[in-house]
Formats: sequence, C-alpha cells, structure tokens
Amino acid sequence: MENGPRKRIAIDMDEVLADTLAQFLAEYNREFAENITKADLSEHKLAEIIPADRRARLRHYALSPGFFRSIPLMPGSPDVFAELRDRYEVFIATAAMEFPSSFNEKYAWIKAHFPDFPDSHIVFCGDKSVIAADFLIDDSPRHFDRFGGQGFLFTAPHNRAETRYPRLHNWADVRRQFL
Amino acid sequence: MENGPRKRIAIDMDEVLADTLAQFLAEYNREFAENITKADLSEHKLAEIIPADRRARLRHYALSPGFFRSIPLMPGSPDVFAELRDRYEVFIATAAMEFPSSFNEKYAWIKAHFPDFPDSHIVFCGDKSVIAADFLIDDSPRHFDRFGGQGFLFTAPHNRAETRYPRLHNWADVRRQFL
Repeated sequence: MENGPRKRIAIDMDEVLADTLAQFLAEYNREFAENITKADLSEHKLAEIIPADRRARLRHYALSPGFFRSIPLMPGSPDVFAELRDRYEVFIATAAMEFPSSFNEKYAWIKAHFPDFPDSHIVFCGDKSVIAADFLIDDSPRHFDRFGGQGFLFTAPHNRAETRYPRLHNWADVRRQFL
Repeated sequence: MENGPRKRIAIDMDEVLADTLAQFLAEYNREFAENITKADLSEHKLAEIIPADRRARLRHYALSPGFFRSIPLMPGSPDVFAELRDRYEVFIATAAMEFPSSFNEKYAWIKAHFPDFPDSHIVFCGDKSVIAADFLIDDSPRHFDRFGGQGFLFTAPHNRAETRYPRLHNWADVRRQFL
C-alpha cells in the first residue's frame, strides 16, 4: 500500500526523452557531408560551432515536416520511463512554443513511442514553472528558476557549464535517483 | 510598488475566453436550418438535446479545418482579460488533447486576438491540476478536483447544476471578483 498520492515527475521531451540533438546532427551532417558528433560540441550548442551562414539551416530543419515526428528516443529512456510510470505520476512537459508547427508531430511522437500514455498527462507549455510537480527533469535550467518543485538538470552539451542544479547525466542516472 | 510576485491566474479557452458553444450552434443551425440558442440548452450539452443520429456532426465540426481558428471571443472577455494582465500573471490554459488537430488553430487564435500575449504563458494540457497557479477560471469542474489553487467555475449551460465551486457567470463577474 502506498501512503498518499504518488509523487509527480514532469519530464521534458527534447534532449531528455527525445534525442533531438542527434536529429539535428544527422540532418546537418547529411546536408554538409560532415561528421560532427555530440562529443565535438563540448559545452556548446550546435549553432555555436558551425559557420554563421549555416545557422539558419537548423531552424529550417526544425520547421521541416517530419523533423519532430522522427526524432529518435534518447538512449536508455524507454525502460526507465516505464518504471517511473509504475512508481510516480508522470507528466511529459514540452516547450513546443518555439516551433508551434511541432505540436502535432510531438503529440504523434508520444503516441507512437508510448501508446498508452494518457493525453491528460501531456503538457505543451513555454514556461515550465507553471507545472505543479514535485520534480522536473529538463535540459534547460531556465525552467527551474520559478519551478515550485526540485529541478534536475539532464546533461546536454549546451548545459555542461551549469552548476546550480543537481544533474542527471543519462537515463541510468534517472533510475538511480528515482527508482 | 507591489509586494512580492503577482498572483497567477490560469484562464481556460473554450467556453471562457472563446465562445466555442456559439461556434457549434452556428455550425449546427446552418447545417440543419435550426435556431437553437444557448438558452434552449438549459443545463444540457448541445449533444444531449439534438437527435442521436446527428451527434457525430459535432465532432465532425470540431475536426474541420478552420473551426477552432474562427471561434468568436466570449462577449466581454477582451477588456477584462487586458485588465487582468495588468494586475496578475495570466496564463491561458486549454485542454487541446480531445482534438489534437486543434493545437495549431488554437495557437493562431490566441496570436490573432492577443498578439502580444507571450508564448511562455500558453499551456496546452489535458489535466489542469498540473498547473501551478493561484486561481483557475474554467467551465469544466473536473479540472478543479486536484488543482492546488482556487477554482472558479465559469458558467456554461452544461455546468449549471454544479454547486461545489464559486461561480463566475460572465466576464463582468470576472472583473468584480479579481479587479
């Protein structure tokens, strides 16, 4: 028997559940015949290490039909995500507002990878401080500033220099922290 | 000078900011050459008072391109909404999951009617108990059950029999309560 309601975890989509950076790298490497890897990014965003005149291509990829729908799962995420759902009340929280055209594809992505995930627990929002949850796992520290629960920073190249929040390097770390 | 951060109000879209029922009635009356008004609904949903074999038409309307984009504003809402934004931190919270195809149109609707409303304060979700706000104005009492703040029921025909929550009959009532 559990005591009281289950704790709530809100989990970000891009760079946490979904390997969005891998998708950007694949598109970029294909177009420009390069072989940039995540390791090459060090603590930078992809946009920061490519020639300035190519940066607009990243936005073009994100606005192209099929981009968000075909993002691969983050390695290790499905099993731990399923275990979290057994023990916690899990929300998927994604800041879709930067590319509003991604709403439908992100919804389809969730339904394809987690067919039994309830619509009621999907949240599209711009500022995740509006989410009422005990924990938030996210790669963007800006969401933690006004968040009422405990934020956990999911490691991505762009956030490697961030030191203010407890960090989860990968989904094995998520399991160790929460399960 | 204000003391501390502004209070947060989350405001529902369908049947609160947007007169979605008026849009359904217009579509239905046009197709079937009827003149059903909101008053005719008494405390019922439109689906409950029309012939059973026509109910699927309502879902058809909602799934038709342009339906959500062209919903009229709820009478009295724009002025009070603007005043609320001066005094509170306002979120628009809409349960788009029943018709996921409505994401883009709802977003376009907000941008058309409130061009300076920040993306960061738009929330698409299924269960509004996930919203961290002091107040929630909504026509669906189901969202209040686990909501952490104070819910206010915005009157719609379908909720006229509900007695558990403080009620706002219209936008003049919203002004009286909050301003």
